[in-house]
Amino acid sequence: MAAESSEKWILNVTAQTPTNIAVIKYWGKRDEDLILPINDSISVTLDPNHLCTTTSVAVSPAFTQDRMWLNGKEVSLSGGRYQNCLRELRSRASDFEDEKKGIKITKKNWEKLHVHVVSYNNFPTAAGLASSAAGLACLVFSLAKLMNVKEDHSKLSAIARQGSGSACRSLYGGFVKWIMGKEENGSDSIAVQLADEKHWDDLVIIIAVVSSRQKETSSTSGMRDSVETSPLIKHRAKEVVPKRIIEMEEVIRKRDFPAFARLTCADSNQFHAVCLDTLPPIFYMNDTSHRIISCVEKWNRHEGSPQVAYTFDAGPNAVLISHNRKAATLLLQRLLFYFPPKSDTDLNSYVIGDKTILKDAGIQEMKDVEALAPPPETKENPTQRHPGDVSYFICTRPGRGPVVLTDESQSLINPETGLPK
Amino acid sequence: MAAESSEKWILNVTAQTPTNIAVIKYWGKRDEDLILPINDSISVTLDPNHLCTTTSVAVSPAFTQDRMWLNGKEVSLSGGRYQNCLRELRSRASDFEDEKKGIKITKKNWEKLHVHVVSYNNFPTAAGLASSAAGLACLVFSLAKLMNVKEDHSKLSAIARQGSGSACRSLYGGFVKWIMGKEENGSDSIAVQLADEKHWDDLVIIIAVVSSRQKETSSTSGMRDSVETSPLIKHRAKEVVPKRIIEMEEVIRKRDFPAFARLTCADSNQFHAVCLDTLPPIFYMNDTSHRIISCVEKWNRHEGSPQVAYTFDAGPNAVLISHNRKAATLLLQRLLFYFPPKSDTDLNSYVIGDKTILKDAGIQEMKDVEALAPPPETKENPTQRHPGDVSYFICTRPGRGPVVLTDESQSLINPETGLPK
Repeated sequence: MAAESSEKWILNVTAQTPTNIAVIKYWGKRDEDLILPINDSISVTLDPNHLCTTTSVAVSPAFTQDRMWLNGKEVSLSGGRYQNCLRELRSRASDFEDEKKGIKITKKNWEKLHVHVVSYNNFPTAAGLASSAAGLACLVFSLAKLMNVKEDHSKLSAIARQGSGSACRSLYGGFVKWIMGKEENGSDSIAVQLADEKHWDDLVIIIAVVSSRQKETSSTSGMRDSVETSPLIKHRAKEVVPKRIIEMEEVIRKRDFPAFARLTCADSNQFHAVCLDTLPPIFYMNDTSHRIISCVEKWNRHEGSPQVAYTFDAGPNAVLISHNRKAATLLLQRLLFYFPPKSDTDLNSYVIGDKTILKDAGIQEMKDVEALAPPPETKENPTQRHPGDVSYFICTRPGRGPVVLTDESQSLINPETGLPK
Repeated sequence: MAAESSEKWILNVTAQTPTNIAVIKYWGKRDEDLILPINDSISVTLDPNHLCTTTSVAVSPAFTQDRMWLNGKEVSLSGGRYQNCLRELRSRASDFEDEKKGIKITKKNWEKLHVHVVSYNNFPTAAGLASSAAGLACLVFSLAKLMNVKEDHSKLSAIARQGSGSACRSLYGGFVKWIMGKEENGSDSIAVQLADEKHWDDLVIIIAVVSSRQKETSSTSGMRDSVETSPLIKHRAKEVVPKRIIEMEEVIRKRDFPAFARLTCADSNQFHAVCLDTLPPIFYMNDTSHRIISCVEKWNRHEGSPQVAYTFDAGPNAVLISHNRKAATLLLQRLLFYFPPKSDTDLNSYVIGDKTILKDAGIQEMKDVEALAPPPETKENPTQRHPGDVSYFICTRPGRGPVVLTDESQSLINPETGLPK
């Protein structure tokens, strides 16, 4: 049988998977091992052109153990969460045959064959931009393709969920709901797509990566502490979120931006309120996060109807969702007014992603940033500018789900050695 | 009748009233006019030697209108809240007679006579240290004495409550409960003393007055917004606080510091969580407040049992309640390590109030602050110092309730002119 021969074939698959940002938040597990949440959540998938994980996975009879490299560094695959994903995938693997290459792998062989995983984020891992969600989703998606797993995305989402809860929502583009499910084994705790990325395609997203010197509480331990100690979290999960989920689905269906913004902001704030209600309290937002919220709230109030929604995950970074391109342009002007780069920063590395928004805002060089006038809504109370409080901005939009990259040149694995290129 | 004669007599009374800090928080009214809260609250009265309002009130047939001076500046008494207090007090005034001075005021005269009020805080009004609580309590207390109002403190508390909710708790020393009451007219929404200031007299309180450039949301409008928009506030008021009130009363009775600290911190955090759950969200704590909490939490964890409780009102200032003098000394060393004064600050104006704590901490001059070693609990993660993030510290303790100052020289009113001295 080929898989046990001494042949040195290497079979590999490369995939790209997006990150996502929750607009109705996931915070709190009812089962720590299976990663089952205490409430449904809803997210927007972000355009993988600006934020994604690319993962190449390979299998070969020559590999002697499962190995993984993340952003150029070898990391251990021995963690329970990786192992859960690998076990679930291997148990669902199907026979594979490539007659030309003389490769034949039976369902049983998959249990014995080792894999190599090489993964890369096109954004800084440390920036707190849900890299683990995209990473685990990409690991599961690419391995499922490699192992010829015939389950649909929804079943795959239940596997990715066991690697990192919010990873399950990265298996679809557009708007995604993670249904908490009822089963003890977690089989019905899956992600489903509410609408694809074309459904509401005038939304524009700007992420403010906020400078922070504080070490943040990991979301795993933070949500465990919240479930154990917050007197408010149960009320949120049982009474508040179920209503918001119904409302958010309707709002997305109708593309009702003002209602979308109100719900998104309220749910982000409530998640952080629950963090504060935890013992010891958890602070993910800092003064810069607060200032960004104040800027958006002031502007939205001034306009009479929301132009921008804000949402913050387990860190100080703001994800700002604009009604449309025009609102995004006005938002970027405001952001650059309040949070200009330090004088020695290159504007080109300060606003990344979809740079056409910067162009629309009439900003080409640092002197244009310096020349920005205070927004009209700040007329009465003159405001300060805060250079250096934001590390950089990423301009992006809602995006598509995972894809296989068929172009061999995009593989991160050397097809001869099975090691990172 | 004397009160309507052309005689120029001036009758005056001077009183001193403490501030208080809630350990179970008041946040949210069920009646805006009568100032009736949605839950009970419990506070500690602070030593008036360090934080108090002194108010002199005078009455004279020569006065042509009600007038008030606060910290040297004339302010209007026309606000509804002042007017409510004045009306309530006048309606309860009793006949007064001073035969020597030839003054006789009947109950009916009080309705027509005008008052002058001169009030002074022995701490910066703008620092957000509950100056309105002490101020309104002192206004009501001193006018009640002047007008010979024969109601007990508890009835007076219901009048002070109509001036500023938390003012009702400043009518007693020690530990005070504001009972929310049930009556629509507010007659049973009163303060009662749980224990006097001698009951638990080893507690030491250090207040960190935190520098802030942000304009804060007034607590009046903030709590209105919370009641109208926070999905969590009702659950807090109905389900969480009633249990905490019972527990806190027991904890105070038993002088159980670890339980006191846990409850106090948890309730402060939950109040701020409700603020964050408000639309638009309200941020009273800033990065410095968060750092103070982290410092205390880390130390408490390191000691195995709480040494210090923290609580924050509607602003970034921390009120830190230490188990005893030794804990307060260790706390002050930590605070001065993390938050030293700017190099040009005089240490004597940086730590005010009971300076013996500073002496116990072995700190006499700036070089002693500079020489402070990092606290042992920070061993693993070296920490930054943040000069200038705290404006100053006030060392104090639980204190007594309002008193009349009989020494005429302490009056703030010129007995000849009826105007501020």
